Amino acid sequence: MLTIALDAMGGDRAPGMVLGAIEIALRTHKDVRFLLFGDEALVSPVLDLMPARVREAIEFIPTQEVIGPDVKPSAAVRGYRQSSMYLAIRSVVDGKADGVVSAGNTGAYMALSMLNFRTVADIARPAIATLIPTMKGASVMLDLGANVSCDGQNLVQFAVMGSVFAKLTLGIQNPSIGLLNIGSEDVKGHEVIKEAARILKQADHLNFVGFVEGDDIAKGTVHVVVADGFTGNVALKTAEGVARMFATFVRDAFQTSWLSKIGYLLAKGPFEKVKKRLDPRMHDGAIFIGLKHVAIKSHGGTDAVGFANAIGVSINTLKSQVNTLIVDELSQVVQDVPSAEVNPS
Amino acid sequence: MLTIALDAMGGDRAPGMVLGAIEIALRTHKDVRFLLFGDEALVSPVLDLMPARVREAIEFIPTQEVIGPDVKPSAAVRGYRQSSMYLAIRSVVDGKADGVVSAGNTGAYMALSMLNFRTVADIARPAIATLIPTMKGASVMLDLGANVSCDGQNLVQFAVMGSVFAKLTLGIQNPSIGLLNIGSEDVKGHEVIKEAARILKQADHLNFVGFVEGDDIAKGTVHVVVADGFTGNVALKTAEGVARMFATFVRDAFQTSWLSKIGYLLAKGPFEKVKKRLDPRMHDGAIFIGLKHVAIKSHGGTDAVGFANAIGVSINTLKSQVNTLIVDELSQVVQDVPSAEVNPS
Repeated sequence: MLTIALDAMGGDRAPGMVLGAIEIALRTHKDVRFLLFGDEALVSPVLDLMPARVREAIEFIPTQEVIGPDVKPSAAVRGYRQSSMYLAIRSVVDGKADGVVSAGNTGAYMALSMLNFRTVADIARPAIATLIPTMKGASVMLDLGANVSCDGQNLVQFAVMGSVFAKLTLGIQNPSIGLLNIGSEDVKGHEVIKEAARILKQADHLNFVGFVEGDDIAKGTVHVVVADGFTGNVALKTAEGVARMFATFVRDAFQTSWLSKIGYLLAKGPFEKVKKRLDPRMHDGAIFIGLKHVAIKSHGGTDAVGFANAIGVSINTLKSQVNTLIVDELSQVVQDVPSAEVNPS
Repeated sequence: MLTIALDAMGGDRAPGMVLGAIEIALRTHKDVRFLLFGDEALVSPVLDLMPARVREAIEFIPTQEVIGPDVKPSAAVRGYRQSSMYLAIRSVVDGKADGVVSAGNTGAYMALSMLNFRTVADIARPAIATLIPTMKGASVMLDLGANVSCDGQNLVQFAVMGSVFAKLTLGIQNPSIGLLNIGSEDVKGHEVIKEAARILKQADHLNFVGFVEGDDIAKGTVHVVVADGFTGNVALKTAEGVARMFATFVRDAFQTSWLSKIGYLLAKGPFEKVKKRLDPRMHDGAIFIGLKHVAIKSHGGTDAVGFANAIGVSINTLKSQVNTLIVDELSQVVQDVPSAEVNPS
């Protein structure tokens, strides 16, 4: 029996979508219970409307504060001890929950998780990682926004973490790793990424293939796409925006004439499968990789379907013990990287 | 009668695709002639196979050197005086051609264009700009890779250039401008982008709306998306990759059963229209904005269709005198930006 702590106040459509997500998640994951942290005045009325089986799976803990989207990470770690986000995180440390999910302020969530969960030995900065759909199936992409600016060593550690994550989630023995750049040639890009490439080339136990470009993400050129948090976040959100635009345009195309409408009815099954496969909500739920406990980040703009998916990611992560395995493997692998010796700066 | 100088040696599929592109471009633009710069041994055999009407539109100038993808911009400007790219650019300065198109090494092409064409007064660094398809029609996006790292002032000048470009190409009086960031709140992002935002907020004549995120690109939230060249390049190529993946998946979906195949036949017209609208090749051809002459960059991986589109962009840019108007307007507008006075660093 797993217990997931949920920040009911994070995300543009909170708390309604969080409760809707619990209902959806319970359809698939019947053996899970939830600790729900949020504002009583806002949560209780919605909670009262939920079916009994949903209410029975929830323990509601009223909280007094909310960490809004404008709060700086530095401010979040100094105060907000009565916030839904902080208390949800603490419940994991206190052993009351197995993992936590929030769609709230990414910077604050990462800072609080880092402080309370601690990073795996030798990992300087955790990263946000997720699986993304590609032409070839799926790839791991990180960092998606935890670290706005990175040095070469950070990128190298992201590569190590991404490799372990891909190995465990995609079942690939020696996942290929690419650094996201604006060209595949050695001369391309800025100094930080060039430094990371120099170090990674010397790490014989890693399958580093070199630089990849934006279009290599969807192509599935590598199993692990490594970027700083700024670039990774922009790339992921750009991809999501284009997927939504394409789906909308194709849907509209089917509506242009009675012929195309019949065409849609005939092709509906496979087309809806494609739409679902590329629907960003189906890939909601990114892991804070490099931490000793499971913290899953859901999109700020997510809805109940997306947040339910993020809950599913937390459950699957816990059941498969991916995070524990990552923690174990990282402690070993990081020490093998020639990063400590090589210092080109 | 316009004359376009073409670098026959730039791009992965050169020179074949350049000649194929000329043939395609001539179908639409009958009153254009081309100066073709390239390696005689490689170009002549292909040229000989072309129809007479294509050969008649081409003046072939054999060149001795090629600037490969690995050449650094600094090396390109020091040597390569006999290269196809350099001589194509020079033909514009010498008044023999009206504009130049190349799919070659972006950094070298930009450096050589900057040196030979000169920037508009007060513009420190030119940018690569293009029109991208959005849910609302089209937006301007820049920089797409000319400037790997930028300071706040560079981003402000990109905003000014993008605004003028949008006004002239999209016909919008006061185009809205957004800075590409990882969140819309003021606290998000790195110092450079925050500095640019501070300056842009004070520029009353610019319609700066603030930060936008990756998914705002396809949404068409703003008319002008401003980014440093690294982020902009990754975002654009990511978008192109996803568009191609979606098109492939939908095409495959139509092939899964005889029902869906009939569905495709019925919905073919509107569906192919969507595919064409979002086909990256239909948006090939980015302008080096901020220079006194017209230089158009085509994708390194482009084919004849994409390069023909880039040729079309050069022709339309010249016919509509967009570059001349940009040069005029920029000379005025740049001086109005409070950038010179404000120096938050």
